[in-house]
Amino acid sequence: MDNTQPRMRWWGWGEDGNDGPVEPGAKKMLTETCGWPKGANRPPVELDAVELPDDDLPDDSRARFDELLGAEFVRSDHATRVSHAAGRSVPDLIRLRSGDVPFAPDVVLYPASDAEVDELLAICRQERIAVVPFGGGTSVVAGLDAFRRDFRSCVCISLARLDEIFDLDEESLTVTVQAGVFGPDLEKNLQAKGFTLGHFPQSFEFSTVGGWVATRSAGQQSTGYGRIDENVFGLRCSTPNGPVELRTIPATAAGPNPRQMFVGSEGTLGIITQATLRIKRRPETTLPDAWFFPDFHSGATALREMEQDGLHPDIARLSDVNETEFGLAQLGSAVQRKGLNAYLRARGVAKPCLLVLRYDGRKSAARLRRAGGREIAKAHKGVSIGGSPETMWEKHRFSTPYLRDQLMTEGIMAETMETAAPWSAIEQLHDTIKREIETTMAERGTPALVLCHVSHLYTAGCSLYYTVFAQQHDGHEMEQWKALKTAACDAMVDNGATITHHHSTGADHAPWLPQEQGELWLRMLRAAKAEVDPEGIMNPGKLMNGPTQL
Amino acid sequence: MDNTQPRMRWWGWGEDGNDGPVEPGAKKMLTETCGWPKGANRPPVELDAVELPDDDLPDDSRARFDELLGAEFVRSDHATRVSHAAGRSVPDLIRLRSGDVPFAPDVVLYPASDAEVDELLAICRQERIAVVPFGGGTSVVAGLDAFRRDFRSCVCISLARLDEIFDLDEESLTVTVQAGVFGPDLEKNLQAKGFTLGHFPQSFEFSTVGGWVATRSAGQQSTGYGRIDENVFGLRCSTPNGPVELRTIPATAAGPNPRQMFVGSEGTLGIITQATLRIKRRPETTLPDAWFFPDFHSGATALREMEQDGLHPDIARLSDVNETEFGLAQLGSAVQRKGLNAYLRARGVAKPCLLVLRYDGRKSAARLRRAGGREIAKAHKGVSIGGSPETMWEKHRFSTPYLRDQLMTEGIMAETMETAAPWSAIEQLHDTIKREIETTMAERGTPALVLCHVSHLYTAGCSLYYTVFAQQHDGHEMEQWKALKTAACDAMVDNGATITHHHSTGADHAPWLPQEQGELWLRMLRAAKAEVDPEGIMNPGKLMNGPTQL
Repeated sequence: MDNTQPRMRWWGWGEDGNDGPVEPGAKKMLTETCGWPKGANRPPVELDAVELPDDDLPDDSRARFDELLGAEFVRSDHATRVSHAAGRSVPDLIRLRSGDVPFAPDVVLYPASDAEVDELLAICRQERIAVVPFGGGTSVVAGLDAFRRDFRSCVCISLARLDEIFDLDEESLTVTVQAGVFGPDLEKNLQAKGFTLGHFPQSFEFSTVGGWVATRSAGQQSTGYGRIDENVFGLRCSTPNGPVELRTIPATAAGPNPRQMFVGSEGTLGIITQATLRIKRRPETTLPDAWFFPDFHSGATALREMEQDGLHPDIARLSDVNETEFGLAQLGSAVQRKGLNAYLRARGVAKPCLLVLRYDGRKSAARLRRAGGREIAKAHKGVSIGGSPETMWEKHRFSTPYLRDQLMTEGIMAETMETAAPWSAIEQLHDTIKREIETTMAERGTPALVLCHVSHLYTAGCSLYYTVFAQQHDGHEMEQWKALKTAACDAMVDNGATITHHHSTGADHAPWLPQEQGELWLRMLRAAKAEVDPEGIMNPGKLMNGPTQL
Repeated sequence: MDNTQPRMRWWGWGEDGNDGPVEPGAKKMLTETCGWPKGANRPPVELDAVELPDDDLPDDSRARFDELLGAEFVRSDHATRVSHAAGRSVPDLIRLRSGDVPFAPDVVLYPASDAEVDELLAICRQERIAVVPFGGGTSVVAGLDAFRRDFRSCVCISLARLDEIFDLDEESLTVTVQAGVFGPDLEKNLQAKGFTLGHFPQSFEFSTVGGWVATRSAGQQSTGYGRIDENVFGLRCSTPNGPVELRTIPATAAGPNPRQMFVGSEGTLGIITQATLRIKRRPETTLPDAWFFPDFHSGATALREMEQDGLHPDIARLSDVNETEFGLAQLGSAVQRKGLNAYLRARGVAKPCLLVLRYDGRKSAARLRRAGGREIAKAHKGVSIGGSPETMWEKHRFSTPYLRDQLMTEGIMAETMETAAPWSAIEQLHDTIKREIETTMAERGTPALVLCHVSHLYTAGCSLYYTVFAQQHDGHEMEQWKALKTAACDAMVDNGATITHHHSTGADHAPWLPQEQGELWLRMLRAAKAEVDPEGIMNPGKLMNGPTQL
């Protein structure tokens, strides 16, 4: 396989052939809350019709890239530029589908080694060229926008050819991986040898190790297997001022841990070219479990007790009333829903909240943890329905983004946002964010359907993940999106939560960083960046150098 | 109790009345390897005989401090200066006991609020006065030396009056604590309410929350309860350029986590005035276990399998042959040892390595984990002897530093050093460090007895903790210590390990930071520091600004 070919279709999520319809039950729910656009059909424009900014790369710079990489790996054809011009945020999709793409790299570069990445950054520094690092292109926070600012050009450096897996240390349970290795390739390699990374973000099929490390990624099993920041023991980062190499150690007290400065640096300090990650042996068993709770409060309390009691489910996902209803409507048949609802009503659950759980590990230990979890769920009025909802959820867990594409064609915008906060704040926060979104969208005349789930557990708190649907405001989609984003983000940061639990910062969340983290910290971060990137060429306009307003 | 009074005696560890003799068995072992100094008796000098540098604090600066805090909390009497002039490293003890103390703060300041700390740092910045923050004074890496450099004065800011515990969030299992709260005070408060922090460094009785956070501390139960860097969810740090306040959140993907820059900053960025920490409910049970292995390899392999299988003991400590022999000699009677050795020899264990374990939590889960651990221990030829050695170890776990004082009086130097590395490197590293220390000390004519244990487990590796005994080289103690320290640290850093797993950097480990972390990272750290401490007044000569050689 030629790894330089993009894995995702240029205008939307994933690959063709996976788009499913909006099921009748879900459509009914959307229609009742948001209304349904009459006869809308808004397919993306043709690739040729996409308008990109001119390719400004000076000839002498191009010649230097050609000489270093070979002309084959210095590409500025239309298709390559378009497919590296954006991530997959709502604004990205609006722009791509309409063919109006204001930011694009002049050229995409494909280095094949650490040394070539080092050399490329040295050239870009000398030539005053901005650099956007590119893994799988799944950013949903404008992490890939090619902001040119006052640089002579902006190039994209794709890590696609840094695709080797080396140094599987079976004794220390670590693996050293190049940045461009995609999720499924790594997982397949590890599983064949009896191991797993256990890192499954929703973007898993199309995202890379380098992207995960650079964006401080969390996956759907990270409650059990750990966030990526907990699983990086060593790394190498090319910077415009030379490489930083951090040896592989399990823990250290030698000052602030430099690994934690590069994990989450989002391409603003340099390009992470490889990382050494924790792996686990494939679990002896994985035990699914599922419960319906009479309300969000009961489910959240049960989850908190499970995590704080050390029962530590590997997967835990609690949907609120709206999300439960929508999920059942999209996945199950009307007959199934009717039967289920009757069953639940008979047990006192009128508006169910679905909790899916999975316990991985040795059989005896996993069973004991599941038994402990069941005691707690029962104590909080949970109604058990076996493991099949978890299995069903798992089967579909990477498919939701396709629905977003489908809905956009039908005139419905679908956006997701997420945060984390202490347990003591979670329920009020859940309501506040939901209310702010609903109010803002209703005032604009596009009432929203808001779904929410808890996706990650910690002893001290949990995450909240929102999905918002509303009719698109034709011709004003960007303005509409900004209003939605601002309402949600203000509600998060004003109420003590973080601006992002696992989507990272990019350009979209940067306006809220000063309020969350303080200007003084951002100055520290900028000063640290200036040591490795004195000219500021690395991913301009993101993170600490992001816009101060949307 | 007046919290401004030092808790430790001025010349050594802890409080009077806890010094025990070197037991005959241990003395025999030391004599056989190191020789025993004839008729040595080197008690510390009298407090009055300690020579300090002159108090250089300008009168106008003192007046500003007096005005802010009240003269009562601006102290430069001899006893106060001596008791804040050093930590408890071997060089500190050599200097204190001999009365020759080259570094001391001119004055010790006792602020009582965040605002007073802010204001003190602003004054010190204006007046060009260096600042050493002081918690419990237990640093063993020269983290407290009052390096004056070219500043007008050097002051010590004691956190002793920031001693409040507030905001116990029983739902989120966090507690917000002021920096000057001592270990036993916090733990007693929490335990009375049914909680525990579970943080028990050997310095527990005499160290503070602020010290733990500033030095990236790990405790004897951190394998189970987590290192302090894993347990800080929010913090406040006063800097010369204003306060940094980081809200309490369980996790975030908003760029590099700023908490991880301040945790481990060792007073070089500012003064951590409060932190919000993870707590746990007091465990339902704590199950001790203990095993003797026929060699270090078998024990280390068993520990690795336990941790990687998720059995996750809360306490795990594996002593090598020398440490096991020394421990039994110091704690047990000759008759007990004889019986034990016969028992072990009959089971094929001629040179035993002792492993003590503890499993905390719910009874059912802890029992299951212990049963799993026992299976593994047996598979690696471990001989079970019940839980009493763990209970015995726990009873004495804070007392070892007293032995160091006693030995120094008798002419024997005792030093400890620690590191961490991946499992695949651990056994060779154990041998290499031991050999380098032995060779260096033998060449100097003071042969060393070297003990070692594994103190902390991770899936990817573990820590190694060394204790070294040798006759003091009269009149050349500092030179002798430097040779020992250099041999051990070179061996660690040359072989891929970290310079410190939990003692932190201070001035003593700073020379090895460039090799371990790279000069570029240290430049980033210095640049970040310059934003909050433009004049460099905060704890000069430590961490990123430490000496480039000992």
